[in-house]
Amino acid sequence: MNQKKNAIVLLSGGLDSATVMAIAASEGYGCYCLSFKYGQRHSVETESAKRVAQSLGAVEHKFVGIDLSAFGGSALTDGAAEIPKDRVDLQSGENIPPTYVPARNTIFLSYALAWAEVLGIFDIFIGVNTADYSGYPDCRAEFISAFEVMANLATAAAVQNEAKYRIHTPIIEMTKGQIIRKGVSLGVDYSLTHSCYDPDKRGRSCGHCDSCRLRLKGFAEAGMQDPIEYAG
Amino acid sequence: MNQKKNAIVLLSGGLDSATVMAIAASEGYGCYCLSFKYGQRHSVETESAKRVAQSLGAVEHKFVGIDLSAFGGSALTDGAAEIPKDRVDLQSGENIPPTYVPARNTIFLSYALAWAEVLGIFDIFIGVNTADYSGYPDCRAEFISAFEVMANLATAAAVQNEAKYRIHTPIIEMTKGQIIRKGVSLGVDYSLTHSCYDPDKRGRSCGHCDSCRLRLKGFAEAGMQDPIEYAG
Repeated sequence: MNQKKNAIVLLSGGLDSATVMAIAASEGYGCYCLSFKYGQRHSVETESAKRVAQSLGAVEHKFVGIDLSAFGGSALTDGAAEIPKDRVDLQSGENIPPTYVPARNTIFLSYALAWAEVLGIFDIFIGVNTADYSGYPDCRAEFISAFEVMANLATAAAVQNEAKYRIHTPIIEMTKGQIIRKGVSLGVDYSLTHSCYDPDKRGRSCGHCDSCRLRLKGFAEAGMQDPIEYAG
Repeated sequence: MNQKKNAIVLLSGGLDSATVMAIAASEGYGCYCLSFKYGQRHSVETESAKRVAQSLGAVEHKFVGIDLSAFGGSALTDGAAEIPKDRVDLQSGENIPPTYVPARNTIFLSYALAWAEVLGIFDIFIGVNTADYSGYPDCRAEFISAFEVMANLATAAAVQNEAKYRIHTPIIEMTKGQIIRKGVSLGVDYSLTHSCYDPDKRGRSCGHCDSCRLRLKGFAEAGMQDPIEYAG
């Protein structure tokens, strides 16, 4: 139990990945946090990732710049597209929302795998979640399992040592309320996190995009007050 | 037969991917070429990719910058590491060579998948090859198959349309000699390609790294003269 084990933690600065990092740390993993700068329309997200990593004791925190906006195809990376507000079908999960970024989690996990291989780490944590919101295909358990199978064929480490990569998805079936309660029990300071797709110039959250609405619903469900500032 | 079909072609500027592009074009695919700048120690490679794409009639050619050197772990991306020359076990395939870049093909294919999804393309061509050189785990057919399964779970397009992504590996079982003969029959100008891991300042190939030696062996096998310039 005393041997130090390590994990790569994909950290966005949002509520979900902050909670996932706290869970990884509570399970005894030293956390090597990996964040991306990917043509986001705002830098509040990367600042939040830094603060969260620091507050939860990251061993190391790397930012990798990737240019998904080169391909276009998402309201999140395309400067001209409009972020949807107050959508009626937020919870339906039947339509893939315009904020979906093509192959994003595939790319994120691929970089995590590369770093894991270099460090000799076999555990990767990612904050995918389907309970509240199943609109993103690359958040589903069947995708994660397929990535895990692929990872165990892709790498020198897996081939040589027969060690197995494992993609941990500890919050995949939790509601936002459950995630928040879990995080609070582990000491996550949610005032450091950021969820809004469309913050104002001062970095305040809009309160109306899908991400804000899920966050606010989660805090309501948990019977708590969201500690961040909203614009409206 | 007249309907235009399109494919993403991963293009490095080397001999293998140039041949793969020619094969895709000969099968009637419009080629959307994708190349990477990934902390390579030389830019000869990217210049070759440009020339090859142009000479074989690419519909579009995108370069994506990715920073694999941030993670280290390979002689190809680590400025301090030495490129092995005249290795004895070149052909053994039992050891993973120091020029292996962690998770490289996983990352390359993930970007190809992202662009394919944005363009509504379902065919991806990659020049992996195991006949001459099986040292890289992410060149094997079982890895490619696993990636294909994962891709068909990762994307909105696959989930919504039930269209299937296919990763084409037309040269996976060819020897270097067979690849060159195939390319010549399709009009590939190999003087535009570049293979050397360690070219000199004028861009001339070293002739002694694994990549040069495989290339030279391939031309010998094909009974042809390599049209590029060597330093030594």
